[in-house]
Amino acid sequence: MPNVTFADVQSAEKRISRYIKNTPILESQLLNSWLGHEILFKAECFQTTGAFKLRGALNMMLKAKDDSKLGAQVIASSSGNHAQAVAYAAKVLGVKATIYSAQNISKVKAAATQYYGATLDLSATRKEADEKVAAAAKKAGVLWTPPFNHKDIIAGQGTVMLEAHKQVGDVNAVFAPVGGGGLVSGTLVSAKALNPTAKVIGVEPLLANDAAESLRSGIIQSLSAQPNTLADGAATLQVGRETFPHLQSLDGFYEIDEEKIAYWTQWLQHLLKVHVEPTSAMSMGAVIEWLKSQSEPQKVLVVLSGGNIDQQKMSQIWNDDHLLNVPSMLI
Amino acid sequence: MPNVTFADVQSAEKRISRYIKNTPILESQLLNSWLGHEILFKAECFQTTGAFKLRGALNMMLKAKDDSKLGAQVIASSSGNHAQAVAYAAKVLGVKATIYSAQNISKVKAAATQYYGATLDLSATRKEADEKVAAAAKKAGVLWTPPFNHKDIIAGQGTVMLEAHKQVGDVNAVFAPVGGGGLVSGTLVSAKALNPTAKVIGVEPLLANDAAESLRSGIIQSLSAQPNTLADGAATLQVGRETFPHLQSLDGFYEIDEEKIAYWTQWLQHLLKVHVEPTSAMSMGAVIEWLKSQSEPQKVLVVLSGGNIDQQKMSQIWNDDHLLNVPSMLI
Repeated sequence: MPNVTFADVQSAEKRISRYIKNTPILESQLLNSWLGHEILFKAECFQTTGAFKLRGALNMMLKAKDDSKLGAQVIASSSGNHAQAVAYAAKVLGVKATIYSAQNISKVKAAATQYYGATLDLSATRKEADEKVAAAAKKAGVLWTPPFNHKDIIAGQGTVMLEAHKQVGDVNAVFAPVGGGGLVSGTLVSAKALNPTAKVIGVEPLLANDAAESLRSGIIQSLSAQPNTLADGAATLQVGRETFPHLQSLDGFYEIDEEKIAYWTQWLQHLLKVHVEPTSAMSMGAVIEWLKSQSEPQKVLVVLSGGNIDQQKMSQIWNDDHLLNVPSMLI
Repeated sequence: MPNVTFADVQSAEKRISRYIKNTPILESQLLNSWLGHEILFKAECFQTTGAFKLRGALNMMLKAKDDSKLGAQVIASSSGNHAQAVAYAAKVLGVKATIYSAQNISKVKAAATQYYGATLDLSATRKEADEKVAAAAKKAGVLWTPPFNHKDIIAGQGTVMLEAHKQVGDVNAVFAPVGGGGLVSGTLVSAKALNPTAKVIGVEPLLANDAAESLRSGIIQSLSAQPNTLADGAATLQVGRETFPHLQSLDGFYEIDEEKIAYWTQWLQHLLKVHVEPTSAMSMGAVIEWLKSQSEPQKVLVVLSGGNIDQQKMSQIWNDDHLLNVPSMLI
């Protein structure tokens, strides 16, 4: 059974609102006219630290503080957006943060994490970092902030949809990327509470389709190795026990190939003038497939999860010219 | 003597305000803390058609309409942001537009120009396109909208600074890129009228430094061939008779090399999460040089002129990893 309720999301919003940005809704007239539908983008790439992740991290820490369970230190294992979110949230709340990462963390993400005052503890592998964080979590006064598999994290991520609904009202469908499933779980809780007829759809890279395999088999499946997908924010090896029951309530689920991920990253950067992550742009591949089965014009919300991209990824994304093929040809 | 007055810019703002977007001011906490100064960015990449160019084109056409000089057709010679601006402005005002371009216009820019309803007349070379537009301009009922060398265009571009001043108040210095000089001329007129102590500084690619050469010699100099710079919006062969006297009143002028242009395009895309053109990011090279001579913390405004970038340029920009060297090391 899903654990997180809309009341949890509403409480999360009250807790975190003063610390986070109300991110804008973007739209492309050109894209709408090409597709014949209204596509609205919730731009969490403009969130502080460059991604929605700050919402969950702040909610978990602030709730722990309310419950007198926030000690002197928070810890996390991450080499991505969650690391920066935990580092920033800890800085805001005046607690020490230690982030356990693999040595291959990108220099620019390491610099941002350290800028926010966190200590970076580097291990040879991600597995070793995960073991270190689990050991450190046993010490007194230490709060372990996981990236997705916790009720308070999911509730925090649910505030993206709650905020978006105030900005755009009811929509026919909402699309969100699936890594560990925290964002899409929170989005589902909020979207259904605010408008039960809204479809909520998850999107995953075909190269990292553990969630799709899990949904097909009914049991959480794990990838055997780190997938080499452009959508690195959705490359998580498996979803969590807290998120999986939510995923099982989704109205649809799509797996998107690498070429489509690159195609939509180029086009969204070009049309919206925003530095969107491949993980975010990926959802458009699912939007197009879903729209093909719709006979009426639809109002769609796409959650742009973040905007942190390494040089290597940017170079890969822009290697081929996808702007030669306009999106009007896809529908 | 400069021809354009602040009253011209104020009239332009009244004419065009209902048709254009009030674009946001962006800021990076990380960049400010690294540099020890406050850098504010006026994000004209979010302007309709993706660049400030719409302001000048609309002002010229609306003024012609007020003076009963707007016939049934507007024409322009451009393969860049001005083409889309003229096409869109014509659509809004319900007149026919023909854009004369060289055959090598990028497919994506051609598609946008045609989407706005303009006819695209392609020639083998840019020179041929320029000759065609001059010939077409002789017909009755046709308004030729030049990209920069006209009082009404300069006054329209001056509204960027007028709008920015309402958003951020007085600043110590304003930086704008120089192609034909329309944007920086209008910016100078507004900035000095609103705050005479503000420094206004022009920025040009070193590979296309005709304006710098013109300022050094006191006579308009022309590049002998199309320069191969990342900052294609500033690759104009020469400035105009209308803009040059304004350029001669600037407080400073910088020529920026290609490596610095790529460096700042990567960093601004990364820090601001915005798809900024190299022409816009280039200004940061000048900001850094200028800040080196300042002993007090400065409040600086950078005009981000646009966000239209071809795949080839994006691929070039992201070829090397400039994110390895953080901007704090530059100052």
